[in-house]
Order: sequence, then C-alpha cells, then structure tokens
Amino acid sequence: MEINKKIIELLKRVKEKNPLVHHITNYVTVNDCANITLAIGGSPVMAEDINEVRDMVSLASSLVINIGTLNSKSVQSMLVAGKRANKLKIPVILDPVGAGATSYRTDTAKRILSEVKLAVIRGNLSEIKTLYGVDSKTKGVDSSDSISANGSELKEEKEMAKALASKFNTVVAITGAVDIITDGKTLYCVENGHKIMAKVTGTGCMCTSLIGCYLGAGDNKLLAALAGVVSMGIAGELAYEGLEKNNSGTGTLKVKILDAIYNLSKTEIIERSNINEE
Amino acid sequence: MEINKKIIELLKRVKEKNPLVHHITNYVTVNDCANITLAIGGSPVMAEDINEVRDMVSLASSLVINIGTLNSKSVQSMLVAGKRANKLKIPVILDPVGAGATSYRTDTAKRILSEVKLAVIRGNLSEIKTLYGVDSKTKGVDSSDSISANGSELKEEKEMAKALASKFNTVVAITGAVDIITDGKTLYCVENGHKIMAKVTGTGCMCTSLIGCYLGAGDNKLLAALAGVVSMGIAGELAYEGLEKNNSGTGTLKVKILDAIYNLSKTEIIERSNINEE
Amino acid sequence: MEINKKIIELLKRVKEKNPLVHHITNYVTVNDCANITLAIGGSPVMAEDINEVRDMVSLASSLVINIGTLNSKSVQSMLVAGKRANKLKIPVILDPVGAGATSYRTDTAKRILSEVKLAVIRGNLSEIKTLYGVDSKTKGVDSSDSISANGSELKEEKEMAKALASKFNTVVAITGAVDIITDGKTLYCVENGHKIMAKVTGTGCMCTSLIGCYLGAGDNKLLAALAGVVSMGIAGELAYEGLEKNNSGTGTLKVKILDAIYNLSKTEIIERSNINEE
Repeated sequence: MEINKKIIELLKRVKEKNPLVHHITNYVTVNDCANITLAIGGSPVMAEDINEVRDMVSLASSLVINIGTLNSKSVQSMLVAGKRANKLKIPVILDPVGAGATSYRTDTAKRILSEVKLAVIRGNLSEIKTLYGVDSKTKGVDSSDSISANGSELKEEKEMAKALASKFNTVVAITGAVDIITDGKTLYCVENGHKIMAKVTGTGCMCTSLIGCYLGAGDNKLLAALAGVVSMGIAGELAYEGLEKNNSGTGTLKVKILDAIYNLSKTEIIERSNINEE
Repeated sequence: MEINKKIIELLKRVKEKNPLVHHITNYVTVNDCANITLAIGGSPVMAEDINEVRDMVSLASSLVINIGTLNSKSVQSMLVAGKRANKLKIPVILDPVGAGATSYRTDTAKRILSEVKLAVIRGNLSEIKTLYGVDSKTKGVDSSDSISANGSELKEEKEMAKALASKFNTVVAITGAVDIITDGKTLYCVENGHKIMAKVTGTGCMCTSLIGCYLGAGDNKLLAALAGVVSMGIAGELAYEGLEKNNSGTGTLKVKILDAIYNLSKTEIIERSNINEE
Repeated sequence: MEINKKIIELLKRVKEKNPLVHHITNYVTVNDCANITLAIGGSPVMAEDINEVRDMVSLASSLVINIGTLNSKSVQSMLVAGKRANKLKIPVILDPVGAGATSYRTDTAKRILSEVKLAVIRGNLSEIKTLYGVDSKTKGVDSSDSISANGSELKEEKEMAKALASKFNTVVAITGAVDIITDGKTLYCVENGHKIMAKVTGTGCMCTSLIGCYLGAGDNKLLAALAGVVSMGIAGELAYEGLEKNNSGTGTLKVKILDAIYNLSKTEIIERSNINEE
C-alpha cells in the first residue's frame, strides 16, 4: 500500500478509536497540545502528580513526555509513568525540548532515554544531536542548527538519525526545514510546512502530540511518527495560505493550524504530502 | 419573574459589580478561564500558593476550585482557601475534573466536598456519578457517560443530581448533551450548546468560571449555576454558527466562544435559551 | 534623532539579533508571552527550575521576572536568576503582578527590587504605588487605581514614578489609560492603546515581554521600555480597529494583537505613536 494511503487509514483509526493520550508536558504550550489532540480525534489528559501518574497512564493509549518546563517533581513523574507504560506496552514518545541548552535538560533527556523504552523521539536538530552526544549550539529551546535541504550535511544528519534510532531501537523524528523520520532502516524525508511555523510557540510540541495520537491508534511506530510530521506540515501550509496577506500574522496562524488539523482530509494528504523514502 | 429575565438581570449585575473571582485551577485551560471571566465582566485572579491563598480569597467575590492538574500542594491550598471562603461566606464552586479516572482525583474531590461547603458543583456525568458514589466509566478527563436526552436513564440521572444536591445542601450542575441543574428541589434541564464544544479543551472549565462570575454577583446559587450553563451553551451555538463551513474548525471555535460571551446580549438569551423547569 | 526613529531602529535590531528572552513567569499568560516574543522577533525560553535557571539565564539577552503565579520555589529561582543576570550584565525586567493584593506578593516584589538590580519595572498604578510604599487599593491583580489623563493626580503620579526610578536607578513604566515611562530624569507620557485591552488577560505581561525583547537588543533601557509600551499600545489600537463590530470580541482581539505585533511597521509607529517627552 502506498504510504499516503497508510497515513489516511491511520488518521481514520484515530477518529474511530479516540485514543487517550496522557501528557506530562510543559505549561507553555499545554493548551495547544490538548486542543490539537482533540482536533485530530484523540482525547488528551494532562496529569503529572506522582500520586496519580501510574493510574492515569494505565488508562492511556499512549504517553507523551515533554521536558519543556521540567522540574525535579515532574521528572520523577516522567520516569515513573514511562516505566509503567513500558510494562503495559503503551507506546511512549519523548520531546526533549531544549536538550543541549542546560546540563539539567541534557541530563534529564538522556536519563529518560536510558531508563524508558521509547517508541518515538521527536526533536529539532540541536536536541537530537545532543541526545546522540554531538556538541550542538542550542539557543534556549530553539534550534540554531537547521537541517540543510541538500549536500553532505544532510547526509550526515540522516546517518546520525539512523544510528540513534538503531542504538535505542526507536524511531527518531528530526523536524526542521526538511524533516527526517527513521527507525534505523527505512528513512523518510518530508518537505512540508512553512518557515513561519517557527514563529508560533509549540508547533514542535503539537507535532509530538499528533504523533502521540497516531501511536495510540495503531501499532506501527514509524508510520505514526511520519503521519504526525506530515499532518503538522500540511496544517502549517494550509494555515499559512489562509492568512490574508495584509493584516494577519502569527496569532491567526495558530488558530488556523488547529482548524486545519480538525479538517484534515484524505484529499489534502494525497495532494500535499511530500514524502521521500530512502 | 420569568427565568430568562432573572438571568439577564444577573448578567447585568456581573457587569456592574465586576466580581473578583479567585481561581485555584489547572494549567491547561487557565488562560481561557481568565479570559472568559473578563469577557463576561468579572475580574479573574489566579493564585495557589499556600502563602497567599487566605489573603487572596478574602478579597474575592467567589472561589473557583478546579482539580484538573491537582498536586499535593495545590490540594492543600484548595482546602485552606475553601475553608477560609466558607468562614467569610464567599461562595465556592468545585469542578471535579477527572474524578473517577484516578483514585487520587476521586479522593481529592470527595475530600473537598466533605471539608468545604460548596455553593455549586459542576461536572460531567462521570464526575458527578463518582462523587455520588456510583461506579462510572471515566476515560481520562472526558466523560464516557453522557446524559441521554430521554428515557429512563435521564430520569435516574435527575434523581441522582437531586439526591447529591440535597445531601450536601448545594447546587449540582451536570453538563452534557442535556444539562441538569438542581438544588435538590427545583430542577432545570437545559438544551443549549453544540456537540463540537467537546472538541475544544476547557469548555467545561470555562462554564465553571462563568458560574463563578454569576455567583460573585448575586446570592442565588441555583440561578448562578443555571445562568453559567445557559451562557456557555448559547456562546457555543453562536460560535458554531459563526464558523465558515469550509475552513474553520476548533481553533476558530474557541476564539468565537470568547467573542460570544463578550457580546452576550439580552436578545440572545431570550431567543436562544432552552430551559425546562421541573 | 527623533524618538520614533529610535524606536524603529531598535525594532529592526530585535529582528536582526533575535534576542533570547529568558522568562520566569506565570502559567496564566505564559503562552501569550512566548508568542508575542516570537512575533516581534525575539526568541523566548521559559525555565524556572532552580537546577537550570543559572545556566539558562547565562545564554539569554534579557531576563523577564513576572510574579503572576509566584510560589516559594519560583521566587527562589527569580532571585538566583536575577543575581546571576546582574553579574553577567544581562538586563532584568520585573513585572510585579498583583503587588498590593497580598502581603506575599508585596513582600516578594520588594525583595526582588532590593536584591536584584532591575533595568526596568513595568506595572499598573496600584503595583507601582505598592512598590513605592504608598497604600493602594488593589483588587486582585487588576488596578483599581488608574492614571487620570489630567490634573494634579497625574502630576503626583509622575513625581512618584520619577522618585522610584531615581531611588533604584532603574526605569519605571506605569501602564494605564496614560502610560508613564521614566528613568527619573526624562519622562515620557504615552497615549496609545484602547481600554478594551484590559478585557484580555495578559496584555500587561505581554507588554513586559516586549520590553524584554527590546532590552535584549539594545543598551538603552529607557528607550527599550518606551518602545515596548508604544508597540503594545499601537498593537491594541490596530487589533481593536480590526474587530468587525457585530460579532467580534475579546477572543478575536487577542489574536489580532499578536498579528499586529508580528506585522508592526515603521509606518504604523510613525503615524500612530503618541509620545510626549517632559
């Protein structure tokens, strides 16, 4: 079956199954993560207290761990919930927000990676480099590095993604101008989205939540990661095209990204998805 | 006086009095709760540290307790603030988000119910069933149960709501496809709103905040709960009707719900409110 | 150089330098603060755990301290980050949200003022009066006091702002119907904005974030504060004018404020800024 068709099938299953996606996430973009989960057809629940994360994750179809505003309590809950999810075979996705910016973030992301079996890791290039052990210039939670669309650098980045995925038996998704999604063997390059998306906080976090929804609806983690990245990219394009050129800006863009995910159609996926398999 | 007129009078008083509504609430929907409080004419303040909740609630016209992202510290503050509000005769409303999903949420909601005198409890059917002591399938923070629009189930649910209200001398508001609001004697059924509202996070929390505003402006807790539920339902209808059918979705819907509350008029309440008293 | 030109130059520098603005802020308006920082051309990072604030602020161009939902842990982080910023000569701006409402807020704001060297303090009249040591009626986090547009009161308020700025060798920005910005010597009065802005939560916090961006891009703290206040005021005017009169309200207004900051142009600043130097 063609890859587009598989994404469309999985999207349909999200809407049928309405997977409960347990988030332990940051307080900056949490509302957008909840809303994009609802928009695509999932059911979000945010719970991070140590007194309830074991119970809550047991009810969930997937677990999203996002370290955007980590603290010593939430990190403990992430580890406990992650291990419990592993025991129950509930897929876990990690968003290592800002790994590389401070040693606390780097150490925490690496600790989660080593103690919790992850189905997917989604980050920008700096964050993934940091997890891989390469020094990377990180500027706060933004990537200073960006995936170049061609040349030898792109080749290196693909190799790194594959190596990281193979080492941890996971799927690695690096998002940027070009997105790379790989399980260590198959690798997809995606060229969807628009650069203005970087001017709205949480487009990365929202992408992670979408992957969480797809993970909760199927059992192919590579496809789930690809579907999440492609969905977010197409939504960004549609949102950008929906701006009236004179007055609209990034406030409207965020609203329209949620609208686009809510309305995401078979036709849009077929006509817009720009996926290359390697 | 007709019930619509009473709601309109109370809305007017909210705008005149500009009641300060102290929230101890979750970090997922807190921004929307603040904005809807402002939109209807109230003044929101969010404060949850144990060092200041006693002082803050003393300034307030009402207290909203929402357990959406509870933790051991915030629960302590909820209890302290709630008791202080009771002493000062400031009305308290509880939103038992996710009660039934984890024992921590269930126990906390029941503890607040037993230690704090509540003016209103607003929840979905699962949450209210849990408080009443009936086993209910809860899926995260969403209700798996929904109030059926007719038949013997609806009758049972009304009896449960009345019994819970009578037992705790409070007003119980169950929101869903049909809304039930009762003080144990009088019971109102409301059929406003649109099912798409469930696809935006926080429509329940926002309804609770609206009830908090109405509670802060008058002294009839049954009317305040009814006014909040009806206002939210009408806003949802107006927002849904305001979507351009092809491109708009749940991102736009949330924006338009806030717009509709800001502009909520006498005429809209008279023409749209769908209230049956029993 | 004319003051408008200086603001335009500084805005240009924000977009070129893309300053990293470290926020330790409240969870109510944090998403809006991040988005307005991105919209104007800055790069936001929110981090408040004691394990990482020293590292994070070292990477930043400016530090925003906002006490909107303070707690004992975040206050400790504010002090540690503020002192580290001082050592590294990174400018710090304080938003004393709700100072005057509870003694915990008042004491914390005063403690930060005494222990951290501040480049700018931005607050409403009640908050600034509280910091100055004048009793002020504060109603939650809203100002009950408002700067009157003329007469002897306005004169008193200007003297107070100047005295506070001089005493702490800082810039004081009081926002309201009329905005006052002063370093103790030069004083600017700004009459931009629209009263509807008070009906959206976080317009003050967002103004503070804008000042944080300008502080991170230049070395003139008075100009940075003025630029932030004027930018926010113009954005509010444009957003208000962009509302379709019948259906739009405060939900749309917030979206349009972000849009307006994203598109803020030289022409708009020249045509709309209403600045009087004294």
